[in-house]
Amino acid sequence: MTGTLTIAGLGPGAEALVTPEVSTALAQATDVVGYIPYVARVAPRPGLTLHPSDNRVELERAQHALDMACAGRQVVVVSSGDPGVFAMAAAVFEAVETGLDAWRDLDIRVLPGITAMLAAAARAGAPLGHDFCAINLSDNLKPWALIEKRLRLAADADFAMAFYNPRSRARPEGFARTLDILQDACRDDRPVIFARAVSTPDESLRVVPLAACTPDMADMRTVVLVGASTTRVIDRKGAPFVYTPRSVGA
Amino acid sequence: MTGTLTIAGLGPGAEALVTPEVSTALAQATDVVGYIPYVARVAPRPGLTLHPSDNRVELERAQHALDMACAGRQVVVVSSGDPGVFAMAAAVFEAVETGLDAWRDLDIRVLPGITAMLAAAARAGAPLGHDFCAINLSDNLKPWALIEKRLRLAADADFAMAFYNPRSRARPEGFARTLDILQDACRDDRPVIFARAVSTPDESLRVVPLAACTPDMADMRTVVLVGASTTRVIDRKGAPFVYTPRSVGA
Repeated sequence: MTGTLTIAGLGPGAEALVTPEVSTALAQATDVVGYIPYVARVAPRPGLTLHPSDNRVELERAQHALDMACAGRQVVVVSSGDPGVFAMAAAVFEAVETGLDAWRDLDIRVLPGITAMLAAAARAGAPLGHDFCAINLSDNLKPWALIEKRLRLAADADFAMAFYNPRSRARPEGFARTLDILQDACRDDRPVIFARAVSTPDESLRVVPLAACTPDMADMRTVVLVGASTTRVIDRKGAPFVYTPRSVGA
Repeated sequence: MTGTLTIAGLGPGAEALVTPEVSTALAQATDVVGYIPYVARVAPRPGLTLHPSDNRVELERAQHALDMACAGRQVVVVSSGDPGVFAMAAAVFEAVETGLDAWRDLDIRVLPGITAMLAAAARAGAPLGHDFCAINLSDNLKPWALIEKRLRLAADADFAMAFYNPRSRARPEGFARTLDILQDACRDDRPVIFARAVSTPDESLRVVPLAACTPDMADMRTVVLVGASTTRVIDRKGAPFVYTPRSVGA
């Protein structure tokens, strides 16, 4: 039997946000590969082997998945969110480019998912309703100076911004520097959304003016959304709505 | 009965990309409101009234939906893709902010969907695997000078870029100017992906080096993805894989 490799996005957490396309791929898989907490979201069944692995071994994980697909297995690599946004799809293609010739001609498919910034934005209103950017704040794989440059240019461009991996125990200072840069470049009342574990039982959402933001408001399960200069907060009885209008005046 | 307003993303086209959360909301709706081709994707059934409306009447459509929700209906506003990305969610909150006090206290929920850039990126590989931005190239609602400024800053930041609404009959020249700016700012071999009608029977995908791109390669059903300077093309027997590595050297 010809093997296949499918890189599937499980969405931010809730089953109701997993696309039918991904559910079908999981139902047909012989092997599921991924970071431990994501593989834990896949129900065991006869004929399916689960291969959970630790964080920070993305390339080895990708190579293992490619090997199994070459051997004729129906392999699904799972990511949370969308696999193409700061997740496993790029790692698989890095492995393909530098790996065995046979890997290039495999049937490799990427199945999109609801990425964290879209789930977070939906909960808050429509903060990404105008032009925006997405930046991974982890400096594991890029120099901090590049992150800083992108933050300043994104503020100049007046993009709304979505930050992934804002803060970890290993890098507590990066998000503090990010806030310093934004507090320097943007007005004090710019709305910032801290969206943690959206669509899971641990979900929380806070809307904080930029001047009042502190580094401890984010952790690795948080996506941070920063409004553009035009972003509005609609106060109401419940949680406020935050949205960025479609129009910008001339 | 208390009315509700749900703003739901139908994804790029295929049923297999509609989240179960959105399917459930549609199954419980009394009224579905949206642009004609999106409402046409919702199956008629007894007890459901469909309210298709023309393009460019987003604010009136939003007001109509809010009115019906205030009157106790279970209203779903449908967008293609994700409703929070260049779609109906921002229009609804604009209507809420400037409209009746009663609208603010409605039960309004946004349900995320697979936005076009994620579906297009998945088909091509992982071109958005590193930091990126999303820009609506339509200048209906913002001055062209702002689009141009954002394009130049995005190139300086070395973001991969996703362009929505690249070209329409009413604005044939905007995308030509976009290509001029990028061809001036970026290397000739930067990979550009023209992804049209992804996940529908009309789907097509082209990968073209920036220097060979021409304005007629895009229309209003196309999402255009432009790689970063680090983006790679993996040639193979079938369509090439395009991906942006996770790492950038110091």
